[in-house]
Amino acid sequence: MEFLSDRSVLIFDTTLRDGGQSEDVSFSVEDKIEITRQLSDFGMHYIEGGWPGSNPKDEEYFAKIRHEVPRLRAKLTCFGSTRKKGVQCDGDDNIQKLVRSGVPVACIFGKTWDFHVTEGLGTTPAENLDMIADSVALKTLQAAHQAGADFIVLCDTNGGTMPWEVEEMMRKISPHISAKLGIHTHNDSETGVANALTAIRLGAEMVQGTVNGFGERCGNCNLISVIANLQFKMGIGSIPPEKISGLRHISAYIREKANMHENKNQPYTGQSAFAHKGGIHASAVMKFPAMYEHIDPERVGNERRVLVSDMSGISNIKFKLDELDLGFTLSQTELTSVRESVKAKEKAGFVYESADASLHLEILRTVGKLPLYYTLAGYRIIDEKNDLRGDASESISEATIRIISPQNELIHTVAGGDGPVDALSNALKRALVGIYEVVSTVRLTDYKVRILNSDKGTAAMTRVLIQFEAGDLKWETVGVHYDIIRASYMALADAMNYLIYKTSAL
Amino acid sequence: MEFLSDRSVLIFDTTLRDGGQSEDVSFSVEDKIEITRQLSDFGMHYIEGGWPGSNPKDEEYFAKIRHEVPRLRAKLTCFGSTRKKGVQCDGDDNIQKLVRSGVPVACIFGKTWDFHVTEGLGTTPAENLDMIADSVALKTLQAAHQAGADFIVLCDTNGGTMPWEVEEMMRKISPHISAKLGIHTHNDSETGVANALTAIRLGAEMVQGTVNGFGERCGNCNLISVIANLQFKMGIGSIPPEKISGLRHISAYIREKANMHENKNQPYTGQSAFAHKGGIHASAVMKFPAMYEHIDPERVGNERRVLVSDMSGISNIKFKLDELDLGFTLSQTELTSVRESVKAKEKAGFVYESADASLHLEILRTVGKLPLYYTLAGYRIIDEKNDLRGDASESISEATIRIISPQNELIHTVAGGDGPVDALSNALKRALVGIYEVVSTVRLTDYKVRILNSDKGTAAMTRVLIQFEAGDLKWETVGVHYDIIRASYMALADAMNYLIYKTSAL
Repeated sequence: MEFLSDRSVLIFDTTLRDGGQSEDVSFSVEDKIEITRQLSDFGMHYIEGGWPGSNPKDEEYFAKIRHEVPRLRAKLTCFGSTRKKGVQCDGDDNIQKLVRSGVPVACIFGKTWDFHVTEGLGTTPAENLDMIADSVALKTLQAAHQAGADFIVLCDTNGGTMPWEVEEMMRKISPHISAKLGIHTHNDSETGVANALTAIRLGAEMVQGTVNGFGERCGNCNLISVIANLQFKMGIGSIPPEKISGLRHISAYIREKANMHENKNQPYTGQSAFAHKGGIHASAVMKFPAMYEHIDPERVGNERRVLVSDMSGISNIKFKLDELDLGFTLSQTELTSVRESVKAKEKAGFVYESADASLHLEILRTVGKLPLYYTLAGYRIIDEKNDLRGDASESISEATIRIISPQNELIHTVAGGDGPVDALSNALKRALVGIYEVVSTVRLTDYKVRILNSDKGTAAMTRVLIQFEAGDLKWETVGVHYDIIRASYMALADAMNYLIYKTSAL
Repeated sequence: MEFLSDRSVLIFDTTLRDGGQSEDVSFSVEDKIEITRQLSDFGMHYIEGGWPGSNPKDEEYFAKIRHEVPRLRAKLTCFGSTRKKGVQCDGDDNIQKLVRSGVPVACIFGKTWDFHVTEGLGTTPAENLDMIADSVALKTLQAAHQAGADFIVLCDTNGGTMPWEVEEMMRKISPHISAKLGIHTHNDSETGVANALTAIRLGAEMVQGTVNGFGERCGNCNLISVIANLQFKMGIGSIPPEKISGLRHISAYIREKANMHENKNQPYTGQSAFAHKGGIHASAVMKFPAMYEHIDPERVGNERRVLVSDMSGISNIKFKLDELDLGFTLSQTELTSVRESVKAKEKAGFVYESADASLHLEILRTVGKLPLYYTLAGYRIIDEKNDLRGDASESISEATIRIISPQNELIHTVAGGDGPVDALSNALKRALVGIYEVVSTVRLTDYKVRILNSDKGTAAMTRVLIQFEAGDLKWETVGVHYDIIRASYMALADAMNYLIYKTSAL
């Protein structure tokens, strides 16, 4: 279904701004900086980082990222409103913050909807549309263009528009605007992607949206589906073609950063997007994939799964192996063993989308290439709160750990910490530092917990993802267990093993 | 945006057949029977119950439901393929099972895609479309109609079609087919709803889909959005208008039956579909809801929510107070105190976007209206792993807790659990149940953890969000502390306080 075209469209990613308006999404400043780099590398043309005038977090973000702006492949963009009424731009604090943000592009929103007029008139949708297009909207758009805006972006802010209304709007507006047009849609009518594609088909040269469609209410138009549909259905370019197979990865990466559950049915990149369960589907798809698959899943980094006889993994594993840069190649037998061990781990709840270090170790273990740096003999955590003595807001955490060194010595240490995981981390570092000095440099930079089968509440399986840093090295590990302490220990132990492996291999 | 029209469209619900192909959906026979009754009462015109020839569960379903068929408002439908090659229908077991199923309508699928021909030709999408429409598809459709089919339903089985391709297809096919046309779409390109609406706009008189868009891979077209868009955006009738406000209920009902997580962002019926977080949105929406809401949420049985977040101010708090239904009003001084205490809590890392119960308690505490149900004296958690004795994969969690009752008695309990938080929850319930029997009914349904200032790793502040259920009551609480156990205890304690407050107020 793919064909060639000279056209290409600019992708304007607002995951960090509109996406942050999702009910359960809250990115830290560090998250935002790391996501900016990832989205830029992925090939997004514009990245809207935030609204400098709106909150302290966005101020801090722009202050920290500004020195990286020249090195980013994407154009970093700030967001803000037009000047307030009755003041000049020179004296408008909001506008001045945009100017001072230090980024090359500003996206400024203005109102085109004369709400009171239409409200009062109580007209039909068709007449309303005519009215908006003919009188109200056009003048504001022309004013913006004449004042030097590079793009005029049409926004369906409340997400209530149908695709054929977007078509009508584009046909009415295009002849009267010489500026380049962009489109910004929301998904309140479940037509966000169709609306964006319709505008592009009729000439829009920029599309605004978010990765996974995160955003206020029902979300923004989903850039994952937009980019894939442009490439495979419309023959229109956007991000570099060689990045398209990274769509599943970027989708998972943003989801993990936002600490959101996977939408398994997500078009193109969901775990179920190419999963076949129906009897007729499952048998036919193996003979003729195109019968039940609109594209080859590998083109977006996804994979076919047949749920009755799960044969997943191999393409994912191969993709990952290239990415990990193991320093050796795997035989066909080893590849099969790795696939089996990873499948077993995934079935138990491990995820390797972002926990590359744990995957790396799993591969090394499977092919017998991971030295045994230490053996755990046991640990004990005591976490205590006593309101009858001392400060009621304090709690006391203590961890003891026993490990056996490669020289068969028992090392027994104790440490306190801010909470049980911190105490355990300190005790483990204290036990290892005499053998592997490098562990003294480890810093934990992020810690996330997710319950897997949530029907069982606190008794369900717990998945812990931890990010670490030591010098320039950054890595992430995963642990899964019903006990959160045990799951955390798994991730901590992987982290230490990974660091020792990486530094001793240098 | 609503207008009148004489048109109406028949809704063909295949939640029980195509919806059951969702990766994680498995309906029991009893589920299927109950869902059939509910969908029928809701006003679906056709309900596709299953494929009698395909599996024993569907056979049993049809055997059990057949005596209810005359009393159902909907037409119950069975699904099956055309006869096999080389046999007559009399001798085709599959066809005979359809006949014997005892339902008034059969939906029979046949192939229209001469796959090998197009495959071999390697043609362009446009030519391919012409070819299919002109030669292959039309003949099969005409054959079906001439043989007596009431509806010819066009199926985008692999979900790869764009809305304008559906439009082109409808324009090509309609003049050559005198039968009524239906449309069956899938969501693999995230255009399932737009595709179905496009076909309806161009004359299709029946639409097939599933509640919530459940279905194989990325799901079927979502009937919730289709029905709402028909009603509010296209002025086309479908189910009885008085049932439209039941859309949120039927969406939740099917989701619960399927045991699926809520998709909070689901258009029209999701918990976040009319939730406002952004500063500009939150203040504007209270004055002019239509600015950020495409329809009045009550029309689909949903409600407006203003999220209290770091982006919010006094207007959000006021709105929240109305929503919480405190049972008393706050003076201006109290309102100011509440705003200050909520702001201080938010600065410390608490979030009240979903943790309404904790917000409710915070308000009660601030205005001195929360009774002291118990006082915590202290707790101790021991979490131990010992690889030198017993099973290396096991860990042992034990919690002891001491509380003081309103009668000044010390209650001291101990409990184990699957991990430290489960143990602490069990010990707290055991301590409270003698005073407040209702706590025995509490179930934890979800548990989420997030690190706030991630620079400090495991020593950073930890935010815990827990969801609870007891009978029909569902609530969510939040705890923040550097110690994950302590943060979990805060959320557990809020949960118990909230339940006791709510039930003692009854």
